[in-house]
Amino acid sequence: MNVHELSTPALVVDLDIVERNLDTMARLCRQQGIHLRPHTKTHKTPEVARMQVERGAIGVTVAKVGEAEVMAAGGLDEILVAYPVIGAEKLRRLAMLAGERSVLVSLDDERTAQELSRAAVNADSTFGILVEFDSGYRRCGLQPGPACAQLAAKIEKLPGLRFLGLMTYFGSVWGSADERREEAHRMVEPVARALEAMAAAHVPVEIVSGGSTPAAEFCGQIPGLTEIRPGTYVYNDLNTLYQGACRLEDCAVHILTTVVSTAVTGHAMIDAGSKTLSSDPLSAGAKAGFGRIMEALDAPLFKLSEEHGHVDATKSEHRFCVGEVLSIIPNHICTCINMHDEAFLIRNNQVVGSWRVAGRGKIR
Amino acid sequence: MNVHELSTPALVVDLDIVERNLDTMARLCRQQGIHLRPHTKTHKTPEVARMQVERGAIGVTVAKVGEAEVMAAGGLDEILVAYPVIGAEKLRRLAMLAGERSVLVSLDDERTAQELSRAAVNADSTFGILVEFDSGYRRCGLQPGPACAQLAAKIEKLPGLRFLGLMTYFGSVWGSADERREEAHRMVEPVARALEAMAAAHVPVEIVSGGSTPAAEFCGQIPGLTEIRPGTYVYNDLNTLYQGACRLEDCAVHILTTVVSTAVTGHAMIDAGSKTLSSDPLSAGAKAGFGRIMEALDAPLFKLSEEHGHVDATKSEHRFCVGEVLSIIPNHICTCINMHDEAFLIRNNQVVGSWRVAGRGKIR
Repeated sequence: MNVHELSTPALVVDLDIVERNLDTMARLCRQQGIHLRPHTKTHKTPEVARMQVERGAIGVTVAKVGEAEVMAAGGLDEILVAYPVIGAEKLRRLAMLAGERSVLVSLDDERTAQELSRAAVNADSTFGILVEFDSGYRRCGLQPGPACAQLAAKIEKLPGLRFLGLMTYFGSVWGSADERREEAHRMVEPVARALEAMAAAHVPVEIVSGGSTPAAEFCGQIPGLTEIRPGTYVYNDLNTLYQGACRLEDCAVHILTTVVSTAVTGHAMIDAGSKTLSSDPLSAGAKAGFGRIMEALDAPLFKLSEEHGHVDATKSEHRFCVGEVLSIIPNHICTCINMHDEAFLIRNNQVVGSWRVAGRGKIR
Repeated sequence: MNVHELSTPALVVDLDIVERNLDTMARLCRQQGIHLRPHTKTHKTPEVARMQVERGAIGVTVAKVGEAEVMAAGGLDEILVAYPVIGAEKLRRLAMLAGERSVLVSLDDERTAQELSRAAVNADSTFGILVEFDSGYRRCGLQPGPACAQLAAKIEKLPGLRFLGLMTYFGSVWGSADERREEAHRMVEPVARALEAMAAAHVPVEIVSGGSTPAAEFCGQIPGLTEIRPGTYVYNDLNTLYQGACRLEDCAVHILTTVVSTAVTGHAMIDAGSKTLSSDPLSAGAKAGFGRIMEALDAPLFKLSEEHGHVDATKSEHRFCVGEVLSIIPNHICTCINMHDEAFLIRNNQVVGSWRVAGRGKIR
């Protein structure tokens, strides 16, 4: 079946591009002498996680316990929950999982560590722990320095926990190639400061985890970093493209959509709105619009209703007509995927299968 | 179980408030002498749809064929798909449904009508058809006037279709009470123009469907309008609140969330991000922020990552601490609900059950 015969809107994954993206990142990490522990939040699909591990990833990263369960059920063995897990119900589930698989958790608070310890002891299991420090994104994480070593020392004393190292998120590495290079270079200092504090306190550090897709190509230049956790690179999106961190031909996912109305002069309406694309704005490049219409680059997708995409056709050479099928590259693939229960797989524009997005909606 | 014992993040529905909201809208419509055909896109839950019909709604509205199937499976008999359905696969499914239930479809294009006719004939079923006209929102719909009558006349000749009337969406009715009243009053003219054209062409009109939650209280003043299709009123949200179209105590849904990190000075991180709340911006009031933290009104939820809500605590009197559970009223409840597979039900802060959000993700 040709991809254009799919019922719309549909999320379409080009397998040839995915495989190339996976190969490229695996090679980039090898060349930089750094491990890869990809974040699965982008694809939420065990099939893709297994492809990542087959290419040398040392494990996978998730944000939620429910995602960890999905990955474990899909055969993944080493799972980092890069998120401070809090709450008795979630901790019970995660401790159960840690009895069967290697589970690592990041945290930045003593109380969080204590609760993890209690859950691990109750389930007779062990969590590997990474202490999160803040490298400038100002989201989670202690100041890089003595605070990290102090928390690590406390963790070392808690039963059921094994302190493994440090984690940070390079969320501030964003923008043009020059901006990203400069900001990635700025990461050298917080990483060094955190490591110095650990050395001063004689706390051994096995893992120093950082990175993101926009930072990946520069991470080899950060001394002490042992691994990165990029997510987006598997599919890429307009944010990645407009940062120069991928080429257009590296965007592996498009949303197939149908023009449903051209009745209002100058507009065309498509059947992909915010419940299909997500309403995430574009955070790079022109920072306007909700996706790129591949068949009409001169027609901005300027607004989303829940089930309508509003296309401005006034300055376009494309003649939109009702029933026409179009392809859209989304702004942000991670939130877009999360709208879909199913991903349709293509090679050379032929539908060759589908994946269930098994981690979709696993918010707990 | 007290609501605060739920694992977070969780979508919580206060049943007492929902019942009151349903009663209020049912009464408002009766008082205005207008029918209610509520849009189920807000709740996506057959249980709520049945509560609406029990209170006098003449049927329900959906946007997608998949939503229509969910509502039909949930026992709803009269379903308006307020969306131009295009594509063979979706039309086959909808025609099958129309063999068992009363199915109405809106459209604004002759080709769409022809394809619906073909599908109906093939399945030996009938679609009721509403011709959509544009009352100023510039999304779908013909210009109100002769074009509507011409399309209606063509529909009357197509087998398997039964022309029933006109539909428009009052999306331009938005803002303060005064702005909404004024814009709702402006709706009188396009409705009248559309009806005049139908009368001139001797096309009988049974249904004239309009409305939205922000327009609901003014719709009785629009001559010719027979029904409205509000959706949001069942739960309400910050957009509704800041337009003065509901009170704070009418907001029936909150997101229960846990503080997961306070390590970065001046910030608190919660476990509700864009994959829990949706990234829809606030479109009314101050038009800033991603939700209202009920326990700390002076602490803006200023940014969302996928799984983190970023709270600015610098000017707040509230002392955020890790593990603390908070309640958030979302900006836009329709996109927020769509992130959740399950809604937890409370009365007097006690959990009394849950609903599966059965229509979530039914994008086709």
